[in-house]
Amino acid sequence: MTDARRLPRFDCDRAPTLVAELEGWGERADLREAVASLRERRGAGAEFLGWMDLPHREDEEGARLLRCADRLRNTVDTLVVVGIGGSYLGARALLDALRWKLRESGGPEILFAGHHLEASGLQELLESLDGRSVGINVISKSGTTTEPAIAFRLLRRWLEERHGVEEASRRIVATTDARRGALRTLAGEQGYETFVVPDDVGGRFSVLSPVGLLPLAVAGVDVRSLRAGAAAEATRCESAPLGEIPAAHYAVYRHVARQKGLGVEVLASFHPSLHHLSEWWKQLFGESEGKEGRGLFPAAVDYTTDLHSLGQYLQEGRRQLLETFLRVEEAPPGPALPSDPADPDGLEYLAGRSVAEINAVALDAVADAHAEGGMPVAEIATADLHEDSLGALIFFFEFAVAIGGRLLEVNPFDQPGVEAYKRNLFRRLGKPGS
Amino acid sequence: MTDARRLPRFDCDRAPTLVAELEGWGERADLREAVASLRERRGAGAEFLGWMDLPHREDEEGARLLRCADRLRNTVDTLVVVGIGGSYLGARALLDALRWKLRESGGPEILFAGHHLEASGLQELLESLDGRSVGINVISKSGTTTEPAIAFRLLRRWLEERHGVEEASRRIVATTDARRGALRTLAGEQGYETFVVPDDVGGRFSVLSPVGLLPLAVAGVDVRSLRAGAAAEATRCESAPLGEIPAAHYAVYRHVARQKGLGVEVLASFHPSLHHLSEWWKQLFGESEGKEGRGLFPAAVDYTTDLHSLGQYLQEGRRQLLETFLRVEEAPPGPALPSDPADPDGLEYLAGRSVAEINAVALDAVADAHAEGGMPVAEIATADLHEDSLGALIFFFEFAVAIGGRLLEVNPFDQPGVEAYKRNLFRRLGKPGS
Repeated sequence: MTDARRLPRFDCDRAPTLVAELEGWGERADLREAVASLRERRGAGAEFLGWMDLPHREDEEGARLLRCADRLRNTVDTLVVVGIGGSYLGARALLDALRWKLRESGGPEILFAGHHLEASGLQELLESLDGRSVGINVISKSGTTTEPAIAFRLLRRWLEERHGVEEASRRIVATTDARRGALRTLAGEQGYETFVVPDDVGGRFSVLSPVGLLPLAVAGVDVRSLRAGAAAEATRCESAPLGEIPAAHYAVYRHVARQKGLGVEVLASFHPSLHHLSEWWKQLFGESEGKEGRGLFPAAVDYTTDLHSLGQYLQEGRRQLLETFLRVEEAPPGPALPSDPADPDGLEYLAGRSVAEINAVALDAVADAHAEGGMPVAEIATADLHEDSLGALIFFFEFAVAIGGRLLEVNPFDQPGVEAYKRNLFRRLGKPGS
Repeated sequence: MTDARRLPRFDCDRAPTLVAELEGWGERADLREAVASLRERRGAGAEFLGWMDLPHREDEEGARLLRCADRLRNTVDTLVVVGIGGSYLGARALLDALRWKLRESGGPEILFAGHHLEASGLQELLESLDGRSVGINVISKSGTTTEPAIAFRLLRRWLEERHGVEEASRRIVATTDARRGALRTLAGEQGYETFVVPDDVGGRFSVLSPVGLLPLAVAGVDVRSLRAGAAAEATRCESAPLGEIPAAHYAVYRHVARQKGLGVEVLASFHPSLHHLSEWWKQLFGESEGKEGRGLFPAAVDYTTDLHSLGQYLQEGRRQLLETFLRVEEAPPGPALPSDPADPDGLEYLAGRSVAEINAVALDAVADAHAEGGMPVAEIATADLHEDSLGALIFFFEFAVAIGGRLLEVNPFDQPGVEAYKRNLFRRLGKPGS
C-alpha cells in the first residue's frame, strides 16, 4: 500500500472558530517536540512505544500466528475470545467493520466473553455453545484480571468436560506475558499454544499485536493487508514533514479546542458497523488523556440512528462539544431504493439511488447543520472499509493520541486511575492480602 | 403492584458537594411549581403530556393489541420492527432488559430495521430473512421519515414477492397517526391492521403506547405487568408529597449539578443487557433538555466493560461529569464460579460465589472509588429486571426529565433542532419542494 489516497485524511474547514487558531500549526514548537519525542522513542512512557514498530515487526511469531489461525479455522466453528479492555475492543472493532466482507467467507464465528460480569449474559453464552465445535483464545497479560479469569474458568471447564483435558488444551490458545504470570504458568502446564502480549505495548495500543491479530486471522481477516496499511501510515507519521501529517493536524485541532474550554469530543460515524471502532477510540483517547484533571471526554454517536436521539442536543444543546465525523469514502455496497410509482411514502424521487449514496449525502447534510448551529465540526476520512485502510486508520488514531498526550503534558501510555476501584473490589470481595 | 419496594429509589449520598445544596429540596418553590404544572397538565408543551396517562389508559385498542400480538405470534417466527428514535429505542431497551426471561419463552425473534442508512447492514438483514416466516410492524407517525420509509419499501417488496400482496398485508401492522399521513393512507388502501401513535405523546415518551407495546407483546413480554408497574410509579408521582418522590429528587439533584457548572451526566449500568435502556435514557434526556444552549450532555457506560476503557477518565479526568449508577437489586441469575483447588488464576477465594453477587460488589467498589476521586456519584435502584419494576423505572425517568425541563425553563416536549439537518438533507437529495 503506497497509495497515499488510501491513508486517512483530516480537515476542519467546518470549525471556523478553531481554524483561525490553527494557522501555521505545522510550525508549532510544541508539536515539533511532541513528534520528535515519539520518533526518537523518548519522553513520558517511552517504555511503551512498541506500538509504533508493530506494523513493521516481522518475526517467527507472526508466521506461527497464521499457522495457528489456519489450524483453528480447520478445527472449530466458534472461537470464544476471552479478554477485556484492550484485549477485546480492537479485535471486536475490526471484526464488526469488516463484517460486510467476512460474512461470506465462512470462517468460524467469533464470540467474546470475559468483558463483563452480567451473570445472565454469561449463562446465555454457555448455553449457546451447545452443539458447536468451540475453541478459546484467552487474552490476559497476567491471567488474574477478574472478568476474563472468571469467564475462562467457566469456559475451560465446559471445554474440558466436553472433550477431555487433552483435546481441550489443543483448542485453547493463550495470548499472555512472555515469561511471567498465572496464565503463562497454566499454559506451560497444559501445553496451550501461546502468543505474546509485548512488554512495550499497552493494552489499548495492542490490536496490531497477537492480541488482535490472532482472532482476526481466525475470522478470515487479511492481517497482512491490515499491517501493511498501518505500516504505510506509520511511515508517513515517522518521516513526513509535520504539516503533512493528518494525525498531527487532528491532535493540534483537539488541543486547541480543549484550550478554548471545550470538554467533550463526539466521534460521529454513519455506520453502525463502526460502533465498536468508536468504542475502541473512546478507550484509546479517554484512557490516554483522562488524567490529572485533564482531557476531552470521549463520546460517540452512531448516525443516522442517533440523529433521532442526540441530534437535538448536538444542534442546540450546551456549547461544550466538538464533533468529529468519520467518513467512509467508498462504503460497502447494499441495495438501491426500488421504484414504486404509487409513491406511498414520498420517496419516489430517490428511486434507483443506492442507500449507501443517501447515507453519504446525510453526512454532509448533518455536518453542515451542526456547524451552522455553532458546533466545531471536523472530519476524518478513510478510503473504505478494507483491511489496509482500516489498519492505516488505527495507526492514525494511535499517533494522534500520542501527540495529544504530549501536548497536554500527561503520560499518554499509563493508566494509574484504574487501580482505585480494583483495591476497593478486592477488599470488598475479601481477596487474600487485600 | 402496590409494594413501594418495587418502585425505583434514588440516593446521592456519595455526592457530598451537592448534598449540601440539596437540603430541603422537597420544599423548593421551583420544584413545587414544576410538579404542579405537570399534575395540572399545564405549562410549556402541555399538549404533549399524554404520556402521564398512558399507564392508566384502558381502551378497546389495548385489548385489540393483545389479540393482534397473539395472531402474529401464531403466524410468524420473526417480526421486523421498522422505526427510528422514539419508534425504536423503547421496545429495543425493554426487549434487551427482559432477554434473560424471554429467551426461554419461544416467541418470535424481534429484529429492528429503519433506524440507520448503512447499506451493507440493510443487505445483511434482507438476506437473513430467507427461510423465515416474517411479519412487519412499521412504526411512523407520518410514514415519510427517510430511514424507516426506505427500509419499509424494501421489506414490503420482499414480503409481497414472497407471499403475494394479500398475505403480505396480513403480515404487516402499521402503528401510525390516527387520521393523517402517508402510512395511514397506505394502511387503509392495503388493509393493514393499525394502531395509533397518540397525538399527545412525543416519540421519546411513547414506549408505553402501542409504539412499544405491540412489539413487546409479540415477543412475549407481559405488557399488563409493565403497565401496572408504570401506573404505580405514576400514582406516586401524581399524588405523593414532593419530598417523597424519588424522580423529583433526581431532577433537583441534576439541576443543582448543572448550576454548579457540570456539563455531562454519565449513566452507569453493570448490565450489558441494559445498554439500550441507557440509549433510550440518552434520547429522553438529551432531546428534552438539549436546547437553547442548555442541558447536561447524556453519556452512558456499560460496566464492568467500560471500567477497562473509560474508567481511567472517570477516576482522574476533567472534573466536568456527574455519574449516576443504575443498580439492579436482584439481578437475573447465572453461574457460580466453579472451584479449582490448583487455583491457576488466583480466584479460588471466590469459588462457589455467584457471578451476579460479584457484579453487585463491583458496583459499590466503583461508586466508592469514583466518589473518592471527586466525582459526584448518585444511584438509581430498581428492584429487579421484571416487567413491573422496569415499567416503574420508565415512568420514573419520564417524570424526572419533565421536571428537569421545567426547572431548566425549556419546553421538554419539543425538538425544534432536528429540522435543520433534515432541510439540508432534502435539499441535497433534491426532494421536490425543498
